[in-house]
Formats: sequence, C-alpha cells, structure tokens
Amino acid sequence: MPKKSKKKIHPVKCRFAAISPKAKLFNRVKVAFQGEIGAFSEEAVFKFFGSNSNIQTIPCQTFADVFKLVEEGNADFGILPIENSLEGTVGQNYELLLTSDVNIFGEEILRIRHCLIANKGVKIGAIKRVYSHPQALGQCREFLEKLKLEAIPVYDTAGGVRMLKEEKAEEAAAIASERAGKIYQMKILKKGIETNKQNFTRFFIISLFIPLLQKGRDKNLKKETKRAKDSKTSIVFSLKNIPGILFQSLEGFAKRKINLTKIESRPIMGKPWEYHFYLDFEGHQEDKKIREALEELKEKTLFIKILGSYPTAKWR
Amino acid sequence: MPKKSKKKIHPVKCRFAAISPKAKLFNRVKVAFQGEIGAFSEEAVFKFFGSNSNIQTIPCQTFADVFKLVEEGNADFGILPIENSLEGTVGQNYELLLTSDVNIFGEEILRIRHCLIANKGVKIGAIKRVYSHPQALGQCREFLEKLKLEAIPVYDTAGGVRMLKEEKAEEAAAIASERAGKIYQMKILKKGIETNKQNFTRFFIISLFIPLLQKGRDKNLKKETKRAKDSKTSIVFSLKNIPGILFQSLEGFAKRKINLTKIESRPIMGKPWEYHFYLDFEGHQEDKKIREALEELKEKTLFIKILGSYPTAKWR
Repeated sequence: MPKKSKKKIHPVKCRFAAISPKAKLFNRVKVAFQGEIGAFSEEAVFKFFGSNSNIQTIPCQTFADVFKLVEEGNADFGILPIENSLEGTVGQNYELLLTSDVNIFGEEILRIRHCLIANKGVKIGAIKRVYSHPQALGQCREFLEKLKLEAIPVYDTAGGVRMLKEEKAEEAAAIASERAGKIYQMKILKKGIETNKQNFTRFFIISLFIPLLQKGRDKNLKKETKRAKDSKTSIVFSLKNIPGILFQSLEGFAKRKINLTKIESRPIMGKPWEYHFYLDFEGHQEDKKIREALEELKEKTLFIKILGSYPTAKWR
Repeated sequence: MPKKSKKKIHPVKCRFAAISPKAKLFNRVKVAFQGEIGAFSEEAVFKFFGSNSNIQTIPCQTFADVFKLVEEGNADFGILPIENSLEGTVGQNYELLLTSDVNIFGEEILRIRHCLIANKGVKIGAIKRVYSHPQALGQCREFLEKLKLEAIPVYDTAGGVRMLKEEKAEEAAAIASERAGKIYQMKILKKGIETNKQNFTRFFIISLFIPLLQKGRDKNLKKETKRAKDSKTSIVFSLKNIPGILFQSLEGFAKRKINLTKIESRPIMGKPWEYHFYLDFEGHQEDKKIREALEELKEKTLFIKILGSYPTAKWR
C-alpha cells in the first residue's frame, strides 16, 4: 500500500499570527479589496499579511462589496483605504464602518509610488496617450505635461494596465503601481513619476473574526494570547451640541495621558448641528486605563461604538 | 453734440456686499473654480454671489491653478470644495490653504443632485453608455445597474455633457448637474439619480481681498463695516506630541463657551508623530473672546495660522 500522502498545511506567517495563535489554524485566508488585481489596496494586503501563497485576494467593485463579503463570511478579512496624505479621509468607509458589525483588525501604511507602464517593446518616445484613474493622472500631472502626453481617465489604475495589454497598444501607456506592471508582465518605463513624493495611504484591515485578546474575559483564552506591544483603538461617538462638550469628552483621555493619534468631526448630514467624532488613540480597549477612559466618555455621549483595537502599523 | 453715454455701473448684489460696502465698488467680479463650465463648483459660485451678470467665472484645470489666479490678482475670488458628506475632506485644498496667502472669505453648502442628460431627441431606452466623473458614476451606481447602462469615466461631470454634444451622440448620456444640462442646451432625462440623497459639498470662497472688518484695528474703517451676525473662523495649528496637549489646547475655547464646528487632525507626512489640526469655530477673529482664546492657544502651538473669518453658510 502506498504511503498516504500527508497534505501539508502551511501556517500563515503574518502579523496577525503573532497576535493570535488561533490564526494559524486558517489554511487559506481570503481577503477582499476594492479594485482590480494589481491595485494599491491589494499591495497593502500583501504588505500586511506577508507575501504568502495562502493569501487569496478577492477583487470587489465597491467598498460596500468588501464589507458584504466579510459580513457574510465569504472573506476572512477586508482591506479599506481610510486616509491618504494628499486626498484626505475616505469618508465613505467611515460611514460603512459606522453601520457594519465588522471589527478593525489591523492597520497598514503604504507609500503610493506611480509608474509609467507599457507593453513590451514600446519606447517612451512613441507614447502619446496615458490611461489611469483621474486621481493618479492628477498626481502625475507635471510628468505628463513635460512629456506632452494626453491623459485619459479610466476606472482603476490596474485596470488601465490590463486594458493596455488586451489592446496590445503601441502608442499608449498606463499609470499604476510597479506591482501591477509585473502582474500583467508589462514593461516599467519609469518609476516614481508622481509630483509629490509624500503620498501615503493608511488602510484598515477589517474582519468579523474577534481576535482572542478581545475575548480576554475568558481566563483560559487569555493565557493563550499575546497582545501587540503597541496597540491603537478607533472609536466613533456623537455628543450633544453644547459648547465645550468635545473638550469635556477628551478630559478622560488627557488625565490618563492617553495619546490621541487622530480626531475628526463629520457632520451628520440632514442634522446640521450634530456631529460624529472619530477618534484614534494609543492603547488597547482591554487596558485598564483605556477601559476607564471609555467608561468616562460614555457618560457624555449620545452614541458610542468601538471600531476595534489593533497593532499599530510601522512606517516601514 | 450727442449726449455722452453714461456707462451704468451695476453694483454686485451678493452676500459679500452685505458684509463689506467696499465690495460694491467692484464692477465685474472674477471667480476662479476647478472644472469645466457647468461644474458643481461653478454652481456654488452663483449660489454664493447670486446669479448676477457681473459675475465672471473662470474654469481652471486644478485646485492649484485656482489659488494661483487669486494670488496673482487675476481672479478676485476662488471657490474650493473642502468637504463632501459622502467622500470626506478634500485634503489637497487644506494643504494649499496652509501655504497660500489667501483668506477664507466665505463658505457655501451645495446639495449635489445628479441628472441623466442626453442630446435632444434621444430617448432613455436608446441609451447604452453613460459618461461622467468616476465619483459621480459611483454615486449613481444603483440607477446605472437597474438600467444596465455601461459607465464610462471622464475627467469632469460637465465635460462629459460637452463631449456628448460635440459628438452628437445618440446612444449615450452623461451624469452631471441640471445646470450643466441647461448650459449646453441638452435634455434632462431624469433628475436625482444618485443613490444617497444626503450628498452635500461644503465650499470655501477664497480671496486676497481682506474684508474691511478684518482691518478693524483702523477705527475709521471699522465704522463703515457691518460684520455678519453669525460668523465662523477657520484656523490650522500644530502641537508638540505630548499626551493631553490637544485637550489643553481646546481649553481656552471651552471655558469661553466657543462652539467648535469642525476638528480634524492630519498627519504631517514624513513626520509620523506630528499633526496639523484644522479647527472651525463660531465667532469672528475680531471678537474679544475669540481674540483671547486664540492668544491662549498660541502659547501651546508650534505653529498657528488663521485661515479666515467669514459669515456662516445657511442650509438653504
């Protein structure tokens, strides 16, 4: 009798394995992102989870689709751009976080570096038209003007590369990530063509999967878990429109020396004098001083939701 | 000898005339905006200044161009979208405000209502493709899916309408404002096709023109001026990264019962632990209690800039 083949289970070696041993039980991890294969969001997935053959990325048309896949259990994780250094906050994703049951599981920061990409054999001098998302075209405007190239908008940076390949275009190029160029086996004519190099996007990784450390009340489970040394927590809340109430609401954080890393008010549309406040701060919701500060805050809020505690992303 | 024709000078009847009598001296007011004729930004210009033949709008390719025209005196005012209820803050415009010498002169809020627009004689059943800016296409996705229409991205909502007219397209439509449809004498097939009706954009009107009330230190000038009853002030500042410093910086506003209407932290890219804080609050920089609160804030900031005081926009 031949030896029974022993199917090897590859443990997922990634940052989330470090914060939860349970994660190693996953054989294949599905991660939903908005955009086409080769998009910056997909690049952020691999930066976060590591370039591992056990990671399966699922392209989605919209951010709402990313949430849906995660909520219905058809993806283990989703990734969402949440703010960009040039364009600002992605408000839509904050709105979706507000109403969804998903948790913020982690964050990632990606430097956005645009490349000029063409079919193999195409020389830069032959190019007349350049396809990309309007935002990417805008971010590379100086380069396009210098070379007198016509900018043509398409839906998606990586989608422009795919189109170019399908059409075997000889007088056109696309602007997308280096990774998109490699995936479609195209030629990278020039790297880093963006005007402003301080172009970073911060992403949230979302899941329904509650990291064990968040179930910490169970003593047996708690023993197994290792919390990330540097954690951050994101919350959203609303306050009555009383002068000074925002100041009062931050008091509980200030007196416990909890460092705020983001604060943003967003008007609740249709209710001109009401706001949602989005707050990120250092520390984990299970930390004693964070728990106390949140209890104190609750007394002043009309509404509060903890979006998640997660390991702080490093600027790598 | 024939009677010498007396050229009639039309005073500009608009909101800014109400806050500064000097403004009436303008014969023709030039206002720069980003986009093509018929863009939502241009609509906001007329909502703010009133539909007056003395208003000349100047289309610009980029936001930076809007700033440049105003800074060089080639436009009296510029208009900038600063936040949208669905998309969030327009970070780029905040960055430009930070480094420019322009003043915020006013604010305006516009409801964004998308229309399906086609050439005259074209019936809705004949349409196969729809042109618009990717953001507008995304905001009308449910409508497009229901009618099984192919969405084709273009640079500009109003630009899509112009293109349609030039091409005399019979199987295509555009998504843009009702006003864009009227300007290009096209047929409005359907109004309000956006999925989410809570779609508002807030604009800043910028100028180099310092309203007289801001020169209030000059007693003679002060007498002439009438400050808007409800004013708002926008500032930007940075703080040292000390826990609780943001809380302390807001103390001066809280104890004077100054109502904050917007707060937003934006990381200073390349300096991971430093932030710029954008703050809007009720009151004018010439008000006694605002002056005191700003003096108190200055003691805690590394940097502070007053972007302007302006009459509060009404939700009309």
